Amino acid sequence: MNMRELDLNCDMGEGFSIYQAGDDLGLLGSVTSANIACGFHAGDPRSMAATVKAAIARDVSIGAHPSLPDLQGFGRREMAVSADEAYEMVVYQIGALKGFTDAAGVPLRHVKAHGALYNMAARDAGLSKAICRAVHDVDASLVVFALAGSVTVDVARDMGLRVASEVFADRSYQDDGSLTSRRQPGAMITDLQQSIDQVLAMVQHGYVRAVSGKEVPLQADTLCVHGDQPGALAFAQGLRSALENAGIMLRAPVK
Amino acid sequence: MNMRELDLNCDMGEGFSIYQAGDDLGLLGSVTSANIACGFHAGDPRSMAATVKAAIARDVSIGAHPSLPDLQGFGRREMAVSADEAYEMVVYQIGALKGFTDAAGVPLRHVKAHGALYNMAARDAGLSKAICRAVHDVDASLVVFALAGSVTVDVARDMGLRVASEVFADRSYQDDGSLTSRRQPGAMITDLQQSIDQVLAMVQHGYVRAVSGKEVPLQADTLCVHGDQPGALAFAQGLRSALENAGIMLRAPVK
Amino acid sequence: MNMRELDLNCDMGEGFSIYQAGDDLGLLGSVTSANIACGFHAGDPRSMAATVKAAIARDVSIGAHPSLPDLQGFGRREMAVSADEAYEMVVYQIGALKGFTDAAGVPLRHVKAHGALYNMAARDAGLSKAICRAVHDVDASLVVFALAGSVTVDVARDMGLRVASEVFADRSYQDDGSLTSRRQPGAMITDLQQSIDQVLAMVQHGYVRAVSGKEVPLQADTLCVHGDQPGALAFAQGLRSALENAGIMLRAPVK
Amino acid sequence: MNMRELDLNCDMGEGFSIYQAGDDLGLLGSVTSANIACGFHAGDPRSMAATVKAAIARDVSIGAHPSLPDLQGFGRREMAVSADEAYEMVVYQIGALKGFTDAAGVPLRHVKAHGALYNMAARDAGLSKAICRAVHDVDASLVVFALAGSVTVDVARDMGLRVASEVFADRSYQDDGSLTSRRQPGAMITDLQQSIDQVLAMVQHGYVRAVSGKEVPLQADTLCVHGDQPGALAFAQGLRSALENAGIMLRAPVK
Repeated sequence: MNMRELDLNCDMGEGFSIYQAGDDLGLLGSVTSANIACGFHAGDPRSMAATVKAAIARDVSIGAHPSLPDLQGFGRREMAVSADEAYEMVVYQIGALKGFTDAAGVPLRHVKAHGALYNMAARDAGLSKAICRAVHDVDASLVVFALAGSVTVDVARDMGLRVASEVFADRSYQDDGSLTSRRQPGAMITDLQQSIDQVLAMVQHGYVRAVSGKEVPLQADTLCVHGDQPGALAFAQGLRSALENAGIMLRAPVK
Repeated sequence: MNMRELDLNCDMGEGFSIYQAGDDLGLLGSVTSANIACGFHAGDPRSMAATVKAAIARDVSIGAHPSLPDLQGFGRREMAVSADEAYEMVVYQIGALKGFTDAAGVPLRHVKAHGALYNMAARDAGLSKAICRAVHDVDASLVVFALAGSVTVDVARDMGLRVASEVFADRSYQDDGSLTSRRQPGAMITDLQQSIDQVLAMVQHGYVRAVSGKEVPLQADTLCVHGDQPGALAFAQGLRSALENAGIMLRAPVK
Repeated sequence: MNMRELDLNCDMGEGFSIYQAGDDLGLLGSVTSANIACGFHAGDPRSMAATVKAAIARDVSIGAHPSLPDLQGFGRREMAVSADEAYEMVVYQIGALKGFTDAAGVPLRHVKAHGALYNMAARDAGLSKAICRAVHDVDASLVVFALAGSVTVDVARDMGLRVASEVFADRSYQDDGSLTSRRQPGAMITDLQQSIDQVLAMVQHGYVRAVSGKEVPLQADTLCVHGDQPGALAFAQGLRSALENAGIMLRAPVK
Repeated sequence: MNMRELDLNCDMGEGFSIYQAGDDLGLLGSVTSANIACGFHAGDPRSMAATVKAAIARDVSIGAHPSLPDLQGFGRREMAVSADEAYEMVVYQIGALKGFTDAAGVPLRHVKAHGALYNMAARDAGLSKAICRAVHDVDASLVVFALAGSVTVDVARDMGLRVASEVFADRSYQDDGSLTSRRQPGAMITDLQQSIDQVLAMVQHGYVRAVSGKEVPLQADTLCVHGDQPGALAFAQGLRSALENAGIMLRAPVK
């Protein structure tokens, strides 16, 4: 991917039953990829159909957002699943969402694991292999969205999959390229300009300035836009405008 | 479908978690189509992966067996779902199972609704339309398995879908071609020879003898083999032998 | 219950996982009884613990709000459950909520069935018996909240249970004392003053004026306050003020 | 508890929907306490009602068997739940089962955590505190069943709860009193006489002979009888006979 391109992705369709989560319709005006919940941490057939339809209407690229089976905990609690279990749950969820994109006549383009599954895979090669094997087996042309610098990136590449290296605008980084833990002060970046500066450095110069001040090389293919926080929509719009003004081409990774 | 051909289908993969239901491995030696549970009334990613693999090993054709969302009630309790809800839940479940057949590199060939969803659709054109539309939209080449003589058959045909008209060996019929209610005496046929005679009449002569003695015309494309009853395997084997000896070609409907 | 007394009840704790539904904290300032969701249509251990705690802090009487097992459909879809199944699911849910009131050292005071279960029971004596038997067996001192004029009221009384006859401020009535179907025009009352007038007539004079103009006798022990609509809190506050100003004593039914 | 007394407990009601797990009716003839699944790893209102009834008929003491919310994984997969979440899920499940014992007019007598929750608590004081606090708050007279020698035993005692120290007949022990990991050879004891000898040493002499040959002191109040293995019933019967012949009084802990 060219250094002057960037994908903006956002988790969507994370409601359930009568519940809404996040301003999906608003955010679809700002992002280029939608990670749609598949029913294991959030989402149900109703939300999946509606979100696929809404993404198509805004010409936003569609991906699956599979999770651990933990509806009560929103997929945020780590679980000791085996590699086989991880493989099977990811196949199931990709397939379920692909049902809706097939029905709508549009391609499914990427897969991004959710919450605890994403975080566990980022540090566990075996789990990353299980997830990437599931992606590979269902459709080897799907792009894997994975934490920049994580083992998931390496595992997906080794398997011959397309990978989008994911970075964050609202999180600070450590010297080794990892995210500052949320339990530490300074983990979150709430200032829009600081976020913009961080992303421009990543996209234009290929590095992130860690909290120590050190410049750490980092591949930025896709930027995670959070949709579930107060001010999320304005933040996304501000980010998008700044990136466009800086001449960054915003678009989904080519499958 | 030629009058001298017949498909033998059986519900499979209806375990869940640690639970097994039915002798799937045994029955796969006798049937030609497997209807695999998709997680809404039974089944989970583990059972779906295992059952797809087992069906492939026995060269049995694979179909999805979507249900109402009622795990606690095994999909047997009627629910007042809207047409949209039915459409969406069927898309989801077909997609989920297709994830596993895609991963295994084999085609998904048919869809048979489960339990209360099947029964409700058989008498409700709107619900049949929703289900058939879901099949159509996900993959218009899938064969719909539907109760012989039901509105589902007509709806599917009108939509341009391939249909397999389903008949039963262990149930008696009424003059209008409907099944005798289980609440009435004589609903179940437990004698193997009587079952064989009923099926041969259906396949070779195109009629079923109703409990009244009347010969009722009936299209028999696929025969439902129950796997969850005592003696199910022996019954299936006896049926298969008798049909083969009578020169009936047993095979799945061509997609 | 004295004609000049009224209980104001509201469904609460109907969030799930990360989701909130309704302004529970606000509404607890206006109502006298809280019907707390028990996990089958909404609610989970987290929301139940939090809602019990919040109700205690506002001195609001606590009841269980059991439902059909339909999380995806928010308990609004009718299901063909047997009387035994209904009995068992109500015992389970009352027990689960009683765990939290026992843990908090406060009494559980009432039971109000939710959504489709409430509506089905209102017209089905067998289902009403199953629900009331469950209430009776777990704790015979619990008050059953049931639709005014419905068979549930009669069934509960025949079983020796305390009953609170439930009326609505935002729904119009028919000549037979039933609610106007939501599918008909004029079913909903959105004008606050009209609602107040309707409730005052019920409480002070024992009748409701049907849409035809006819005065229909109706027992009003508890008024259902809806918390999930826009303006719900202001509506509840306006209603409460008007009732207090009219000298109605607002309090939960004495167990 | 007197050294010559022993409780025999078994997990029960671990079916779900149409599924059965274990020969509950048979095992109820051999054990003195039943740990009944509460719907989170297995069990549903139907199985809970039926198992409570069956236990009463055989005069077997009834306890709750709460679990992590993992129906798909049968509660065997560790999950990163917070102490508050553990507290709330245990309150919920104890309450739910207490609904059925209250309805049947019999006391609930004990609580034994299931699978991963039991194992995690055995080595985590914070989690043990959450579980024991839940037991304490719902009903402080309930007996906590906890792994002999584990922190759960200490935590429960410190909280003033009655504790039954649980031992195993079919597992070998290490020098520190812990169970040999199932991943190591010699973890399981399949010989009935060896099991009997181990249990008699525990009950009559207060020690277990570790795999090293060392005699390790161990308190044996309740013995876990596994019901889900081939030959489980015969094993339980053989164990019971041997213990009775040795003059051990078999009975549930007095609440």
